[in-house]
Amino acid sequence: MTVAKVTEITAESTESFEDAIRQGVQRASETLHGIRGAWVKEQKVRVENGAITSYRVDLKVTFVLD
Amino acid sequence: MTVAKVTEITAESTESFEDAIRQGVQRASETLHGIRGAWVKEQKVRVENGAITSYRVDLKVTFVLD
Amino acid sequence: MTVAKVTEITAESTESFEDAIRQGVQRASETLHGIRGAWVKEQKVRVENGAITSYRVDLKVTFVLD
Amino acid sequence: MTVAKVTEITAESTESFEDAIRQGVQRASETLHGIRGAWVKEQKVRVENGAITSYRVDLKVTFVLD
Amino acid sequence: MTVAKVTEITAESTESFEDAIRQGVQRASETLHGIRGAWVKEQKVRVENGAITSYRVDLKVTFVLD
Amino acid sequence: MTVAKVTEITAESTESFEDAIRQGVQRASETLHGIRGAWVKEQKVRVENGAITSYRVDLKVTFVLD
Amino acid sequence: MTVAKVTEITAESTESFEDAIRQGVQRASETLHGIRGAWVKEQKVRVENGAITSYRVDLKVTFVLD
Amino acid sequence: MTVAKVTEITAESTESFEDAIRQGVQRASETLHGIRGAWVKEQKVRVENGAITSYRVDLKVTFVLD
Amino acid sequence: MTVAKVTEITAESTESFEDAIRQGVQRASETLHGIRGAWVKEQKVRVENGAITSYRVDLKVTFVLD
Amino acid sequence: MTVAKVTEITAESTESFEDAIRQGVQRASETLHGIRGAWVKEQKVRVENGAITSYRVDLKVTFVLD
Amino acid sequence: MTVAKVTEITAESTESFEDAIRQGVQRASETLHGIRGAWVKEQKVRVENGAITSYRVDLKVTFVLD
Amino acid sequence: MTVAKVTEITAESTESFEDAIRQGVQRASETLHGIRGAWVKEQKVRVENGAITSYRVDLKVTFVLD
Repeated sequence: MTVAKVTEITAESTESFEDAIRQGVQRASETLHGIRGAWVKEQKVRVENGAITSYRVDLKVTFVLD
Repeated sequence: MTVAKVTEITAESTESFEDAIRQGVQRASETLHGIRGAWVKEQKVRVENGAITSYRVDLKVTFVLD
Repeated sequence: MTVAKVTEITAESTESFEDAIRQGVQRASETLHGIRGAWVKEQKVRVENGAITSYRVDLKVTFVLD
Repeated sequence: MTVAKVTEITAESTESFEDAIRQGVQRASETLHGIRGAWVKEQKVRVENGAITSYRVDLKVTFVLD
Repeated sequence: MTVAKVTEITAESTESFEDAIRQGVQRASETLHGIRGAWVKEQKVRVENGAITSYRVDLKVTFVLD
Repeated sequence: MTVAKVTEITAESTESFEDAIRQGVQRASETLHGIRGAWVKEQKVRVENGAITSYRVDLKVTFVLD
Repeated sequence: MTVAKVTEITAESTESFEDAIRQGVQRASETLHGIRGAWVKEQKVRVENGAITSYRVDLKVTFVLD
Repeated sequence: MTVAKVTEITAESTESFEDAIRQGVQRASETLHGIRGAWVKEQKVRVENGAITSYRVDLKVTFVLD
Repeated sequence: MTVAKVTEITAESTESFEDAIRQGVQRASETLHGIRGAWVKEQKVRVENGAITSYRVDLKVTFVLD
Repeated sequence: MTVAKVTEITAESTESFEDAIRQGVQRASETLHGIRGAWVKEQKVRVENGAITSYRVDLKVTFVLD
Repeated sequence: MTVAKVTEITAESTESFEDAIRQGVQRASETLHGIRGAWVKEQKVRVENGAITSYRVDLKVTFVLD
Repeated sequence: MTVAKVTEITAESTESFEDAIRQGVQRASETLHGIRGAWVKEQKVRVENGAITSYRVDLKVTFVLD
């Protein structure tokens, strides 16, 4: 019988969406054990003077309860 | 690199929706640090004898991980 | 065994959304018994010359069948 | 034959959601003629130290083309 | 003033969806106090050689904060 | 020319979701003629001390107007 | 203060979607007073031997309560 | 590199939905250049005494920026 | 025991949406047996110089497996 | 590199939703290899004289391409 | 009191989704002042002979009204 | 008269989402002729020990029927 929890996090990067996902998953795994995967719920960018300054993702992270 | 978590709470008040939001955010901040904002997901009222007895909101609260 | 019905009503007020909800629930309870609650489905305002003239709510009202 | 346009605006107030809607509609009517109504798409609050600092609404504003 | 939290869990059973819900709620209540209810968000089955090997549910569990 | 109406009901049972659907459809047919079918809109459970106390379904019931 | 109710009907015609809407609204107005409008929720066709045999619409009909 | 804008319009006709779409697209093209297409977001009818008095469509119109 | 499959097709016509649906269903029935019905998922028009050049529908077609 | 296809099927049973899923998956696996799982998209019942005559599920079935 | 407008644009690139977003934001900022951010609504690719020929994004761009 | 079909595929890559899309489209074109485009429906990552092990996309692929 496996029970997993789903938590929602928001992560930001100046590089790319995929970098934001990497960092978000890594940061979350410092406090959450057994992370199995994540679903990309939203993708946003911040803009200044017509240029992208950061990439932001909202993730639903799934981790297994021991 | 900022990572924020999103958690869902339900709060109720006999006064108004905005009072329910105020109380919900205040109660949540007793256990959660770094709350930045909240999104109103649902608004419901309880009714008895044709009159509203309470206002209930479902909120998605965002808080920044240290 | 409890069975409840859900009906959809639209109510309007010149004061506020909460006043529109109050009036809508009260008016509905004149014809429907056992109203337990209502869910706010939509909120709209009518505008004339840049000012709000009325607040309109679409409600899903739940009432218990005797 | 009537043709209306729908535009999306975001308005913020320190008072309440309804005040944010009032101000948003009023500001929009300075540049847009024939505003007939608005639909509340989203409601968010900003929070600092557990207290609400501002109420933000996303509105879909409808205005009639001359 | 009641404030409740909503958390998302995934539970799996080889018997049925209802068994997966029972086990998920039971496992969650080992770590969460005051669980009041759960909403079935998704239902999936795993399949091998044309036969169902497990029933999986995604649940939104509501629990009251003390 | 066939015209059918759709009404929304909520039914609850201590046994299972399917029992709640059966009872809901049966109760509704006491007041509504010509029920053809129902669509399961939502499935929720009530929980006490980590155990399921009741199964609740929201149904959209379709019935043909004579 | 105006309160309106919204009810859902399904209507079918062998001619076209618009004919199905016309007939549905007309049939509904035999039992419901004060119908103001209807929103087309769904459009389906029945097919036999590669040809359309009927056009079916699901409508949300709004009528004002006296 | 092509960039297109999407704007939302509402158009009404006493004839049919397709006539409302035709008129809406034609009216919009008097002020917008490079219209490529439109997506039908909503279809509504106004009703008086059980008869349809007008057909209303909400359209998302796409036009290419020079 | 009946099992039906659902496939998604896109059909286009220079006449009307209903003509596009007719043609789409007819073309699909050349390769698919047992088509029972279709649900209109999306309606779009192509535009040139402010005039509609074609009507496009996205359909979900249901057909029974022998 | 794994590529999987998703197809939509509808299955019906006189027993229960889970029986309808079992039969649907089994029938589909007679023509589709490598079925890994299925997601329950919709659940409906047919009704006659207030009693349920059949349980119908719409499933999204995932199978791996060789 | 800040009021922001939201407009929808579609941008295309032969390189990647992120390049399409960059170009779309840059092109939009030539005509719109005060762009703060953008939300990625849709991501599509065009294909010829099994290869991707372009990456297309639909963006909701937010800009502050002076 | 053009009729196109839409099929859903899932593709996975250890590199990036765009690589997963490329491979998915390429693999699909080995069995499907006339692929015109694809819409990104979902983006997920698999995680082990806090690091992303694969990027998974759900695509809706459109191809023209001869």
